[in-house]
Amino acid sequence: MRYLISIAYDGSKYNGYQKQVQGNTIQDKLEDVLTNINDKKRVSVSASGRTDSGVHALNQKVHFDLNIKITPDNLKRAMNSLLPKDIYVRDCVSVSDDFHARFDVKAKEYIYKINMGEYNPIEKDYIYQYCKKLDVVEMERALKYLEGTHDFKSFTSGDDVRDDYVRTIIQTNLIRDLKNVNMVTISFLGTGFMRYMVRNLVGTLIQIGEGKYKSTDIINILEAHDRRKAGMCADACGLYLKDVFYR
Amino acid sequence: MRYLISIAYDGSKYNGYQKQVQGNTIQDKLEDVLTNINDKKRVSVSASGRTDSGVHALNQKVHFDLNIKITPDNLKRAMNSLLPKDIYVRDCVSVSDDFHARFDVKAKEYIYKINMGEYNPIEKDYIYQYCKKLDVVEMERALKYLEGTHDFKSFTSGDDVRDDYVRTIIQTNLIRDLKNVNMVTISFLGTGFMRYMVRNLVGTLIQIGEGKYKSTDIINILEAHDRRKAGMCADACGLYLKDVFYR
Repeated sequence: MRYLISIAYDGSKYNGYQKQVQGNTIQDKLEDVLTNINDKKRVSVSASGRTDSGVHALNQKVHFDLNIKITPDNLKRAMNSLLPKDIYVRDCVSVSDDFHARFDVKAKEYIYKINMGEYNPIEKDYIYQYCKKLDVVEMERALKYLEGTHDFKSFTSGDDVRDDYVRTIIQTNLIRDLKNVNMVTISFLGTGFMRYMVRNLVGTLIQIGEGKYKSTDIINILEAHDRRKAGMCADACGLYLKDVFYR
Repeated sequence: MRYLISIAYDGSKYNGYQKQVQGNTIQDKLEDVLTNINDKKRVSVSASGRTDSGVHALNQKVHFDLNIKITPDNLKRAMNSLLPKDIYVRDCVSVSDDFHARFDVKAKEYIYKINMGEYNPIEKDYIYQYCKKLDVVEMERALKYLEGTHDFKSFTSGDDVRDDYVRTIIQTNLIRDLKNVNMVTISFLGTGFMRYMVRNLVGTLIQIGEGKYKSTDIINILEAHDRRKAGMCADACGLYLKDVFYR
């Protein structure tokens, strides 16, 4: 039976979502717990995509097959009783055998949190502490140029070589917290994101907010198809995979 | 020269504020950093009071004397460049030689955060995850009975033996977050709090919210002067020393 789970996690203590030689990944924790539940028969999981070390998730989606019979509700409970406290299964459903958590993605939403106010040690792993005023009006203008279908090669990792860098950003938002105007959240809803793409976009937006670039410069940066033209890569701690949508 | 600093800290990785045999306390970190700044001459600090392991502070107040000459602004900068990222000096002023961060306290404010909604792994060290609905109206009624001058012996640690358990709670509040009604913050402004007092008060309020006690039972619990009559001790993670006020 194939299951799809929605998980939230605090990425700050892990080496990212995806399995790797050094271990200590979200995927390792999920597979260890599921193998235990599956009468010790090894379980492999497939996620909607990776998240880097320090990046958090509110609704990462993951599918896997189990040999045992268990209801989705009982599976959710069993997983949450065995997983570490910084990973939580929010939802579990059974899906058809041809459903795939990565290949069937229709859209994904990421959010990035910035604190322009005083440094807060309690939020250091959860919000990017910029601690200076940014020109958020200019940032929002630049953000809106990113909506639509573009070649985002300038915003990928320099060593990310592929045939197709074209992605569609369906909607963006820049929201200031009503209770704390120094808290800014930038959101991106898109058909797909390449590695470091959101962090490179946010880093460039921050440098636009600093006045290093103008909002219209983002058009030239997009057209350059060259990572060196874009701005810095923003810290992982402010980034959250908020949701994944399927066909 | 005597200095008074206001510090914020994430208490989740420390064995509380106050120095102890096992080490790894906020006080240790402050004294190590200040001794370094003070040309390696040992500095001892005095705080407004201790906070337990896992308890956070938004404005803990601490005084100390230095042999070297340094402006408060430069001292703040020097401390923040040397302190670990989970302790932050928000403010630094020079004070008269007879000022004392503990003896001169006029009032203190604590807040306690409770999440009655879905478990959130990202906030596990910063909010008490209750994850069930509480009768907050009944809790607020009970909270109001705590205002005024009372003998709080029932809400102290069982092994806390002293002459005087009388304290004054000046003001209390129970606030539900406008954007998330499952987030409840309880605040206490008082002339002084004994060890575990706020956590024992909150634990009892939570059990009133569960229906284990009625709001009026809190009057009988106060009058019993007996720790065994009160409710549980609430988890440290939800508690913040919000502010300390001086004469």
